[in-house]
Amino acid sequence: MSSDSIPENQNLILLGCGSVSVDLLATVAAYPEPDEKIRSTSFKVEGGGNAANALTCAARLGLKPRLISKVADDTHGRAIIDELQADGVDTSFLVVSKEGASPFTYIIVDSQTKSRTCINTPGFPELLPAELPEPTLLSALSGARIVFLDGRLHETALVVAHEAVRKNIPILMDAERLREGLDDLIQLVDYLICATNFPQVWTGATTIPKALVSMILRLPKVKFVIVTLGKDGCIMLERSADEGPSAEEVDVDRLLESLEMKRNRSTHIPTCISSPVMKLQAEGTGTVCGRLYVGTAENIPQSELIDTTGAGDAFAGAVLYAICANFSREKMLHFAATVAAAKCRALGARSGLPHHKDPRLGSFMQ
Amino acid sequence: MSSDSIPENQNLILLGCGSVSVDLLATVAAYPEPDEKIRSTSFKVEGGGNAANALTCAARLGLKPRLISKVADDTHGRAIIDELQADGVDTSFLVVSKEGASPFTYIIVDSQTKSRTCINTPGFPELLPAELPEPTLLSALSGARIVFLDGRLHETALVVAHEAVRKNIPILMDAERLREGLDDLIQLVDYLICATNFPQVWTGATTIPKALVSMILRLPKVKFVIVTLGKDGCIMLERSADEGPSAEEVDVDRLLESLEMKRNRSTHIPTCISSPVMKLQAEGTGTVCGRLYVGTAENIPQSELIDTTGAGDAFAGAVLYAICANFSREKMLHFAATVAAAKCRALGARSGLPHHKDPRLGSFMQ
Repeated sequence: MSSDSIPENQNLILLGCGSVSVDLLATVAAYPEPDEKIRSTSFKVEGGGNAANALTCAARLGLKPRLISKVADDTHGRAIIDELQADGVDTSFLVVSKEGASPFTYIIVDSQTKSRTCINTPGFPELLPAELPEPTLLSALSGARIVFLDGRLHETALVVAHEAVRKNIPILMDAERLREGLDDLIQLVDYLICATNFPQVWTGATTIPKALVSMILRLPKVKFVIVTLGKDGCIMLERSADEGPSAEEVDVDRLLESLEMKRNRSTHIPTCISSPVMKLQAEGTGTVCGRLYVGTAENIPQSELIDTTGAGDAFAGAVLYAICANFSREKMLHFAATVAAAKCRALGARSGLPHHKDPRLGSFMQ
Repeated sequence: MSSDSIPENQNLILLGCGSVSVDLLATVAAYPEPDEKIRSTSFKVEGGGNAANALTCAARLGLKPRLISKVADDTHGRAIIDELQADGVDTSFLVVSKEGASPFTYIIVDSQTKSRTCINTPGFPELLPAELPEPTLLSALSGARIVFLDGRLHETALVVAHEAVRKNIPILMDAERLREGLDDLIQLVDYLICATNFPQVWTGATTIPKALVSMILRLPKVKFVIVTLGKDGCIMLERSADEGPSAEEVDVDRLLESLEMKRNRSTHIPTCISSPVMKLQAEGTGTVCGRLYVGTAENIPQSELIDTTGAGDAFAGAVLYAICANFSREKMLHFAATVAAAKCRALGARSGLPHHKDPRLGSFMQ
């Protein structure tokens, strides 16, 4: 594996801790009613799991990811390992259990409505922190530029995160929903990506912009919080350390509205609009000094839109790359939207993930 | 494997040709809506496929079944073979393909409503008659007391059936639905079991009794046709070679009504009521000489009814046994209902299939 875009001497190592799985994708002519007996029209097996997907994306883009997770020594487990290795993800930190079963997800793909119904069968036994002895953890973190967490395996993830903090290795977390242990983990992260509903669910704020302000106020270390909105792109709030005496104070909801107005709706490619550094006020919550960004998603023609499963993981993988490559925030959001859109043009969480030489990434990879 | 009930010197060998599969049974708290992402509450892998299930049932009851079918040399294929062998089914006639994939069925088990939604992913490449050379076929048929077909693999099944006819080996077919090649196969069968809708769909008759008369008229070799009705038991029409001069002519629909009236509704165990040999007239279709039987199913308390998947295969396996053991027709229907009811008390197509020493079969196995 080589990278044309990050200089060789720059640190490419990324450590991820989270879920890994196998997806069994069964395409059907129509979603079955209960008690129906139908046939799939096509079938495909592909790796899955948020952390494993994001790391696969990062590996294809040119990073050198290592994954901490657990599988069983069964067919699914062996397939998971083979596929990760083929993509350049270091699996030497995966715990392989002699007993139990590897996790898998059966995905019913409706070829008409394009719905994706997922039934996950968890793996067992679960990963325990004791299965990751300190020397192994230190070895896994050695030389790492960044740590990625998907909120799963929270006990082990917390051990990894504390050690990363001690070593000044920044942490990016992708927060999909409220999970056990998430409140402890989230305090330690430097960069946060959230699913659409997460900021309001976690903070109780009435709008997404207010929730983002609340998160910046509540999370001492966090540099930015991104909320992904599917086809509506994303919103990012970045904390500014230095507010400057002249920073204007604005209502964060109004600011979002004004940025939305500036969106270029005539282009199909992702764009990014940002505010200057301002004092962003969220009524009833407080004020933070920062910049608000609005990123648009690529407008994918319906005929090319195959599958959005894993698009969030692709977005996270691209953000990991962008941080390592020191992309500007605008370029990062534009890049992540481009990578996520490439993924959506193929069936499965990983099939569409672009390689770093993909011509669609040309302008980013110079 | 031994049998306490069929004398040792009697022929126990049964040759089946048809489908084999693996069932992945995922139990869920509620059937998922399209686009929902849920977790299974429990998961179980078990052999499936109509012919393989019926032969497993027959093997547990004491027969020595051989199976002609095809799997791929993959995990599912190896699991299929291991499970059949453990149950005493001879797998030496299975074609194992180096390429392709073994068939499997994902079954969504709703623990509340008890619905069983099945998505079958066919295996490939399909079995071709050329993969069963004549010496192999002759060896498979050698010493066989009966042949079982489930209507699948119709090209190969037709070759098997023609050879069985040449050797005077009777054929039992379980006809679930109209399938390619079924019209050729059905002409060759001696015993026929049909799913509830099949007789009317195949004949176009307005009632099940009329359809049964029509089938006896159209199928030259068939000795009896059974239609299974789930919890409502079954109806069987048996052809009589010798009508006798005194045989009374009755309308077959009226006859069924009069037998239904005689049902003992106070008992929970399966019963069987039959008419004498009569001239059974189906208006607009014709008249056959035969006996009509009404078999009731076991009335299983709701708390004990776990899964009806594979109940039809269990019924067929028990009928195969009953024919080999020369049971009377009444005892055969009573026995098959008892075996099918045992299966319905466990999850999966094979888990509940009773062994020949099962105390619930005591009265039949003396």
